[in-house]
Amino acid sequence: MNLFSELVNKNIVYNGDFLKLRLDQVKLPNNKQTTREFVSHPGAACVLAIDDDDNILVVKQHRYPISKITYEIPAGKLDLGEKPEDCALRELEEETGYKAGKLDLLGVLHPAPAYTTEIIYIYLASNLSKGQVNLDDEEFLVSEKININKILEMILDNKITDAKTQVAILKYFMIYKTNKKP
Amino acid sequence: MNLFSELVNKNIVYNGDFLKLRLDQVKLPNNKQTTREFVSHPGAACVLAIDDDDNILVVKQHRYPISKITYEIPAGKLDLGEKPEDCALRELEEETGYKAGKLDLLGVLHPAPAYTTEIIYIYLASNLSKGQVNLDDEEFLVSEKININKILEMILDNKITDAKTQVAILKYFMIYKTNKKP
Repeated sequence: MNLFSELVNKNIVYNGDFLKLRLDQVKLPNNKQTTREFVSHPGAACVLAIDDDDNILVVKQHRYPISKITYEIPAGKLDLGEKPEDCALRELEEETGYKAGKLDLLGVLHPAPAYTTEIIYIYLASNLSKGQVNLDDEEFLVSEKININKILEMILDNKITDAKTQVAILKYFMIYKTNKKP
Repeated sequence: MNLFSELVNKNIVYNGDFLKLRLDQVKLPNNKQTTREFVSHPGAACVLAIDDDDNILVVKQHRYPISKITYEIPAGKLDLGEKPEDCALRELEEETGYKAGKLDLLGVLHPAPAYTTEIIYIYLASNLSKGQVNLDDEEFLVSEKININKILEMILDNKITDAKTQVAILKYFMIYKTNKKP
């Protein structure tokens, strides 16, 4: 069965400061035409930074769209032309004040493939050393160190709900703390 | 440290067939005003449906925004006034043709709290029986049964990248297949 929809016409319907919305004309597998409406996103990187005592660096902040204070691993959008690993290291230092001596790709995530192009690269960072926090004027967040077993508990209790944070922690446990190997 | 931004003015800037975009005026913790741009979403439910042989029902489809064929667990948006558990059962039957005799909440997910209000309720479904597939005119997807160990392997190899599917499978393994309990 053919599952592919094909682009007929690309169309930007909203170009905001932060979000860009596309409404493309597409041809469905049955040759009928319809539209596909979605957010155009530059991609992002996030980083599971772990110290020698199994503590994870997390960021606590108010997420206005969901009206909640969340705990998330450090993350941010890719700057134009920026490599995901450079973005991960930059965001880690800007948000927590730590540099990482070692960085490995842990996974890849599509947060909502129905309506955003966003892909998130998840990195595992270790060999941490002190750097410099650097928040922009409209960023209000604090970083904390939380033991990884406590974070797992917060995920299993639905106290941590952010997708990238759940995937990063659960995947880390599955690979490094159980006998399941990729 | 006060982290909260407060609503000053609610503003809908784009109201499409599928997506609604808000650009609210907000007051930051330092009392300055700025805007917050985000997708307003009704919420969703997804379902990890497992049969007596440890096979999972997955849906294969073309996701136009990311230009990929994905494997995802069945999911869909909440209809107006619909309970998440009713949505999970409805989407499972519509997309795979299976009904579930048992349904339990497995977790909760915010796919992208920086720019969408969406919350996804993850259910675990069992006691499966045959029902009736019912796809709408613009839905092109096929359902498959894949063994849960194979699915875990696909996640660890980054062949399954969808956020809700990764969280559902990894959380299931962590709770039911290792000695980590919530």
